[in-house]
Amino acid sequence: MGALDNQLAAARVMARCDELAAISESAEGLTRVYLSPEHRRANALVGEWMQAAGMRTWQDAVGNICGRYEGQRASAQALLLGSHLDTVRNAGRYDGMLGVVAAIEVVQRFHDLGIRLPLAIEIVGFADEEGTRFGITLLGSRGLIGNWPPAWLDQADANGVTVAEALAEFGLDAVRIADAERRDEDFAGYLELHIEQGPCLERESLALGVVTAINGARRLNCRFVGQAGHAGTVPMGHRQDALAAAAQWMVAIEALTQRHNPQLVATVGRLQCHPGAVNVIPGEVELTLDVRGAEDLVLAELLDALLGEGEAIAWQRGLQFHANPYYGISATRCDPAMQACLAQVLSEVQGRSLSLPSGAGHDAIAMAERWPVGMLFVRCAGGISHNPAEAVAVEDVGLAVEAYARWIQALAQRPPVSAA
Amino acid sequence: MGALDNQLAAARVMARCDELAAISESAEGLTRVYLSPEHRRANALVGEWMQAAGMRTWQDAVGNICGRYEGQRASAQALLLGSHLDTVRNAGRYDGMLGVVAAIEVVQRFHDLGIRLPLAIEIVGFADEEGTRFGITLLGSRGLIGNWPPAWLDQADANGVTVAEALAEFGLDAVRIADAERRDEDFAGYLELHIEQGPCLERESLALGVVTAINGARRLNCRFVGQAGHAGTVPMGHRQDALAAAAQWMVAIEALTQRHNPQLVATVGRLQCHPGAVNVIPGEVELTLDVRGAEDLVLAELLDALLGEGEAIAWQRGLQFHANPYYGISATRCDPAMQACLAQVLSEVQGRSLSLPSGAGHDAIAMAERWPVGMLFVRCAGGISHNPAEAVAVEDVGLAVEAYARWIQALAQRPPVSAA
Repeated sequence: MGALDNQLAAARVMARCDELAAISESAEGLTRVYLSPEHRRANALVGEWMQAAGMRTWQDAVGNICGRYEGQRASAQALLLGSHLDTVRNAGRYDGMLGVVAAIEVVQRFHDLGIRLPLAIEIVGFADEEGTRFGITLLGSRGLIGNWPPAWLDQADANGVTVAEALAEFGLDAVRIADAERRDEDFAGYLELHIEQGPCLERESLALGVVTAINGARRLNCRFVGQAGHAGTVPMGHRQDALAAAAQWMVAIEALTQRHNPQLVATVGRLQCHPGAVNVIPGEVELTLDVRGAEDLVLAELLDALLGEGEAIAWQRGLQFHANPYYGISATRCDPAMQACLAQVLSEVQGRSLSLPSGAGHDAIAMAERWPVGMLFVRCAGGISHNPAEAVAVEDVGLAVEAYARWIQALAQRPPVSAA
Repeated sequence: MGALDNQLAAARVMARCDELAAISESAEGLTRVYLSPEHRRANALVGEWMQAAGMRTWQDAVGNICGRYEGQRASAQALLLGSHLDTVRNAGRYDGMLGVVAAIEVVQRFHDLGIRLPLAIEIVGFADEEGTRFGITLLGSRGLIGNWPPAWLDQADANGVTVAEALAEFGLDAVRIADAERRDEDFAGYLELHIEQGPCLERESLALGVVTAINGARRLNCRFVGQAGHAGTVPMGHRQDALAAAAQWMVAIEALTQRHNPQLVATVGRLQCHPGAVNVIPGEVELTLDVRGAEDLVLAELLDALLGEGEAIAWQRGLQFHANPYYGISATRCDPAMQACLAQVLSEVQGRSLSLPSGAGHDAIAMAERWPVGMLFVRCAGGISHNPAEAVAVEDVGLAVEAYARWIQALAQRPPVSAA
């Protein structure tokens, strides 16, 4: 398509993201959570856009809004395109929504041009990815893959309303959620367009990137235990200062992680001193560690090295060190054939291609349990997300629609060989 | 005096510390605050002990319990001995009290032996050093030196009771507090025996030590300001992690302070990350810095070096660093002649003398504004204080009474030349 078509498409995508952003539980800012009145309104609006793009639409048993654009033959296998329509509290307007709206724009383009592909195209606007309301995430995509633990129905929101009650209020039936599950043969694969939520594309001056994997993550609660003491009376050499030990460890975390592999990240996000008084040497420090990487083995090696360092520092100082892992998720690899195809498209549309892992989680994590997945990243300003300041350039969106269309067309001509 | 006399004296001192420890506002633990019913009972008991030691007693206008043992001539100038009778919450039983009770024991010994010195001896049990009730410290000693700002009368406790109201309830008159002030010529100097509240004597296997100075202190609220970010999406090399910067600074604080001077101490006691979530790179860190040292100039040099390092670290990382000093107290030097005299005594009674600064504050800080001061430290178990686990060995107390008596006798024969 020409530059003018991309401009018009981008303008419509931006306008629709603005329209969706107005559907919020709060007058100021954007908050839209699972099974809320705003969820219902967003589904209705997105369904209208899908229909205008020549799609047949329905809402599935967990509240995802779905649409289908038939291929050259009726009942053909489909490529599934998607992202999520729910938000964090006080969110930006592109995280999730851009992927749904851009997918509709691509189908609109095929529809306008009368293009039918060997594969059908389905789009899903997932009802919950962020987990804002119930504290459990990926409810939309995990409904679709049929991996919805029954216990989730009893999970309650901040007002004590359970998922089952909220489903009923929304007009859905908790006993029928299994109906949301799709068959393996329904889809050749799942594609997701999403803002990067990081600064890499911006720093490389590129609008678009190929996602190699969604990083695996490990989270730990860690603790140094020393001896509290009077800040005035205990000489430096006689201290068992838990914060001094933690500081030494944090410096080591930063250095070891950078040395280990430039694509690994490690973060201490929360730290508490006890007793936490200006004139008392901290006897105990609690701190969190979050490590992420695109390869589980490399991540495990890094974590071993970091914990070994924590123990060594504690031992040298006569302290104790404890680390309690409480959350872990494996890395999700994107399908190599889908990556290669997208890399070829990006070389065409922006001169070169950049491959990068995703540090944040996405619906593609769940979808990868059943189908090959591919992801296309769009540059966002300053790498900022989960924030009203989230922003994308309209030119980037035009290029993204162009690239997404080419990628879909290429994959739909020669469906990928799954690497899963 | 012989070893048996010291044993008996020590046993009585220990028993009296136990008796005082039973005068507490709580059934469990020891808490005795200024102008409380427990303050009144402690003053009465200490007054009885003073009288039994041949002293004339009175309670002064701010509630200090005072006693006088006459010298060889009536109305002779006195050596003033003292420490405090108030406590922190859930306190130990020796911090303060040991110094008062041991002083009475020394006078008791002179009285029993019929010894009169060229100088009179006065003892003061200060009514407030810790500042537990009203959040302002050294009220007893600052009453005696006549440095009681009128604004203190309006200071309220946690129940909204002002100092003025509490004085009245205690039977004192707020308009007469200036009567507590003593004349310069009343005293040749002030001596204080106190537990060390630190581990140095214990580590040197010495019961007693000579205090060179009460450390000066500076307290600052410091802040690193970087950029919050997603813990998964921002590569290590692109971060402006305020906690990583703070960690690097804390490692430097420890190293620089030890290198600068072994008697300086620096402590980060409190640290807070913002936003403080496991999966968010800290954009801002607030932390306290407490530095102490026996010489103001050296302390100022250290502080300059530490703040310079904080700025350098922030600059290297593209962050901002702020430091806001909010509290400072100059170092208090103990009188050199008094120190020399005590060092001689300690060489006699325990084979060698050790000189060390005091990291904690004492009544001697206020007294030094008007008179030469000297301090004798007694070893305490593990350096622990402000804690029910506070402990001293009865043998150490026997030696302390012996040394205190010799020191007083020597000073009362040849009053020190003030270095103030």
